[in-house]
Amino acid sequence: MGKRIVVVGGSAAGPKAAARVRRLDQSAQITIVQKDPDLSMASCGYPYYVGGFFDDRRQLICTPTGVVRDPAFFMKAKAITAMTATEVTEIDRQAKTVAYRNLQTGEAGTLPYDKLVLATGAKPLVPPVPGSDLEGVVTLHSLADADRLRQIRDAGEVKKAVVVGGGLIGVETCEALRLAGISVTIVEMLPQILSFLDPQLAKLVENHIVEANGADVITGNAVAEFVGRDGKLEAVRLQDGTDLPTQLAVVAVGVRPNVELARKAGLEVERGIVVNQFMQTSDPDIYACGDCVQVPHRLTGRPVHAPFGDLANLQGRVVGENVVLGNRATFPGTFLTAICKVFDYAVGSTGLSEEAAREAGYERAIGAVCVALDKPPFMGAHPLVMKLVADAQTGKLLGFQCVGPGDVSKRVAAAALALHGGLTLADLTCADLPYAPPFSPAIDPLITAAHVLENKIRGLYKGISAAEVKAKLERGEKPFLLDVRGPDEYEAMRLDVGEKLIPLGALRGRLDELPQDKDAEIICYCKISLRGYEAARVLEANGWRNVEVMEGGVVAWPFEKVTSPPRQ
Amino acid sequence: MGKRIVVVGGSAAGPKAAARVRRLDQSAQITIVQKDPDLSMASCGYPYYVGGFFDDRRQLICTPTGVVRDPAFFMKAKAITAMTATEVTEIDRQAKTVAYRNLQTGEAGTLPYDKLVLATGAKPLVPPVPGSDLEGVVTLHSLADADRLRQIRDAGEVKKAVVVGGGLIGVETCEALRLAGISVTIVEMLPQILSFLDPQLAKLVENHIVEANGADVITGNAVAEFVGRDGKLEAVRLQDGTDLPTQLAVVAVGVRPNVELARKAGLEVERGIVVNQFMQTSDPDIYACGDCVQVPHRLTGRPVHAPFGDLANLQGRVVGENVVLGNRATFPGTFLTAICKVFDYAVGSTGLSEEAAREAGYERAIGAVCVALDKPPFMGAHPLVMKLVADAQTGKLLGFQCVGPGDVSKRVAAAALALHGGLTLADLTCADLPYAPPFSPAIDPLITAAHVLENKIRGLYKGISAAEVKAKLERGEKPFLLDVRGPDEYEAMRLDVGEKLIPLGALRGRLDELPQDKDAEIICYCKISLRGYEAARVLEANGWRNVEVMEGGVVAWPFEKVTSPPRQ
Repeated sequence: MGKRIVVVGGSAAGPKAAARVRRLDQSAQITIVQKDPDLSMASCGYPYYVGGFFDDRRQLICTPTGVVRDPAFFMKAKAITAMTATEVTEIDRQAKTVAYRNLQTGEAGTLPYDKLVLATGAKPLVPPVPGSDLEGVVTLHSLADADRLRQIRDAGEVKKAVVVGGGLIGVETCEALRLAGISVTIVEMLPQILSFLDPQLAKLVENHIVEANGADVITGNAVAEFVGRDGKLEAVRLQDGTDLPTQLAVVAVGVRPNVELARKAGLEVERGIVVNQFMQTSDPDIYACGDCVQVPHRLTGRPVHAPFGDLANLQGRVVGENVVLGNRATFPGTFLTAICKVFDYAVGSTGLSEEAAREAGYERAIGAVCVALDKPPFMGAHPLVMKLVADAQTGKLLGFQCVGPGDVSKRVAAAALALHGGLTLADLTCADLPYAPPFSPAIDPLITAAHVLENKIRGLYKGISAAEVKAKLERGEKPFLLDVRGPDEYEAMRLDVGEKLIPLGALRGRLDELPQDKDAEIICYCKISLRGYEAARVLEANGWRNVEVMEGGVVAWPFEKVTSPPRQ
Repeated sequence: MGKRIVVVGGSAAGPKAAARVRRLDQSAQITIVQKDPDLSMASCGYPYYVGGFFDDRRQLICTPTGVVRDPAFFMKAKAITAMTATEVTEIDRQAKTVAYRNLQTGEAGTLPYDKLVLATGAKPLVPPVPGSDLEGVVTLHSLADADRLRQIRDAGEVKKAVVVGGGLIGVETCEALRLAGISVTIVEMLPQILSFLDPQLAKLVENHIVEANGADVITGNAVAEFVGRDGKLEAVRLQDGTDLPTQLAVVAVGVRPNVELARKAGLEVERGIVVNQFMQTSDPDIYACGDCVQVPHRLTGRPVHAPFGDLANLQGRVVGENVVLGNRATFPGTFLTAICKVFDYAVGSTGLSEEAAREAGYERAIGAVCVALDKPPFMGAHPLVMKLVADAQTGKLLGFQCVGPGDVSKRVAAAALALHGGLTLADLTCADLPYAPPFSPAIDPLITAAHVLENKIRGLYKGISAAEVKAKLERGEKPFLLDVRGPDEYEAMRLDVGEKLIPLGALRGRLDELPQDKDAEIICYCKISLRGYEAARVLEANGWRNVEVMEGGVVAWPFEKVTSPPRQ
């Protein structure tokens, strides 16, 4: 008789583990016990279903050839028993059984296992404030949630919504609701949305959400209460007393791992179920994978909760392997690589932000913001705003972030594999990436980011961030701000904070217009600060000792700008 | 007085070296001597200008902000003297001078140098056959060439063209001419186009060119003569005697490095100018970069000529650094990473093909063809056909190729950085790539390719290529071909080579329909051969000993297929 494998959880990691078991062992008796009514749901696709990117709900639960992944499919195609709408209520580690109960019929029973796989997932957090049980306060976590929000979209009656939480799911939900024609306000407790991002990049994304797409974003303010009448939501009250009248609040403040079953069984639990590199829990016959576990961060070594659908699948495969063949496959951890679509922008990150790197003990971590086009201008280029982070001492790459309308995902994918390989900045400056005009400029933006950061680390320029410049001005300091773009560019868009315009091409002949005190602070910039950097090199060669380059230039300036319509 | 830097060549590598010198040394006296009338031409953009992707020719020679990179620009923005239409005729290494001559005025002179940079580029090869000087026999290498072909496009008189050479430039030129409404025949001497590609992938690209875009492709046949009358091309005669009547033949059979100047000066030359890791020639005061040099292949260590615009720029930066600061920056070589657009396909490659890896001494090199979608189906997925190559013994990644209508460039960029990091297949199976439905499926195609190849290396399936299957059938062998897709899929498209259809879901119950001889050869496949793989696992568990999986399934089958229109 074959090995008995019981998998608790049927969303991503569980079915993947089960399928891998079947491919390695045709005699195994495999049972998936799934609490939800559906199996293998493409849960990351819910926002796109809600937003109307596609209309056929079956696509969320189908194979690529259009077969619904229901228990009949699992049995026919994979000889796997799948019990849906069934909850595992207890694990008896001595007897090696799990107790289950069907949520629809009430039928209960036990299943014996040789190896048990926990893929119990995560559940959405809800702020512990009054009114969170009101009708109209929802999450976007289950397929039922997606169905409900899609119905709201199709009904067209809700005109206003509040999205509580400005993380990945929050901004995806914001887009989905905006595309449904609903006015949206995002409320984020932290001072910025997308907290994994560098604040400057996050602010640029916020500007895109607000200015280009008409949503409101409130940061640094949290929900105090969901205010309702007759059990129905009427407003979201914030901690500063503001009431946002709305019938719909989508709560997206994060998830926490479902660890109750594991904890009750006495398994070790910290930020998630504790597993070793083989995805094995503290009980050698029990493995765990997906959103319920913690895994090591590959740069800090610290355990993190990384509820990403791709990692769930990769972990499931490792678990499937190991329950059949013994501990042979390993899961090395995560760089917390993430990406999301935010209207016409993509937002991606891998590894550590500058701040996170310092906090994790990389004391010499340094980052530079830079801007580059994702293609040659003649092929229809879009800008990317990037921040690459490395260890100034060793050159080791630590993290990369990228936002904008350009091809973000390619650069984040490449950066993630650079982190995997332990590459240094020097490696990246000579990276052999695929180049042709339809796909990238001759120097890929990721390489440009490496060049810029290398220059900064070597002291070829002294960088200053837009936020630091703004803070200086607000403190009443009077640095000499030197915009070295052309007059047409200046006319079309400028900071208008008292800057002086001297185009780079004229600079060498107009040095007398600069402060004659060679210790005066001069801040150079242009559109993206390549010319700004060249200008700084000119000034330094001419004796100025306190010259800075505003990183990312006008494009990465996330604060108010003055624009004039182009002249006729 | 500043260091005198003379740069010979003003296309890509030369200006990049000069610009880097200026940024590092404001006092340097920098002179670019450029034979062509233009500077810093975006030469990789020529096919897109010819094809009408954009109309403003200035974009090929402008900065991103629209300033033409002419001598005035170089002087004003960078304090670099650029002499155009000027040829360097000789290097006097003892006197450390170069002799030049202006091609328009005839004016001649010499320039002294402290450091000399050779960025003399490459020139197009022309087959040594009669008639290559006829009017109508052209190349697409210079801006003048691009102008001529664009004029032909705009005039609309040429109806037929022959592209001689099916490499990167050849297929790009084919697309440009097709978009200009011209009938095109590609003639390639080798048995396949795009010789760096695995033959199966190359054939799929050829099918796309021929079937979807109406061009003709003739392989395994070369030009014997350009036939003309009154000095004008009338036909291209092939070695098999075929005459292709045409007024226009674009020759794109490759380039060779311009090494005459270096050779005359006694510098070491092999497949290009020989340089060390600092891009320094055999004369310590002379550096070289760009299409005129040879560099090491990073996997084989062998010197290769790698005329890619991105590498030219990266090398130029290294040279600029070293001529100012002494030998400090290194250029480590190339993986010959390449990409090109071929109508609605992209075609990319990095590292070694399976054949090239074996030839280079990786005796245990093994590759697997696999197919995956670049996104979830509900987000508008496109297929990718990939071939990943690794060393079966060490798992070290050796190469990756990818073709198809999906997002090829991201996967090739990521694979290139995996090669940079010396990653293994095991590393790639757990890669932490950015995942969200607008950008990739939960398991990225590159990771799927790693899973498939790992399974093959571990013997979980025995792969057979489409070409091997075809050859078997042509030899009269009778393997049992088992298509395990659904009836609808089969109806819509099938190989029709005597296969048996048993959908995977029915297979376990219909094993009696298979050959009862357990040693019979059974070849399983489906659309992409994931279900084919699962079927093979089922058959092996049931005692069949000679089961193979046809890699890539129906999608990667490059030979004739039978299609039926979908039923109403």
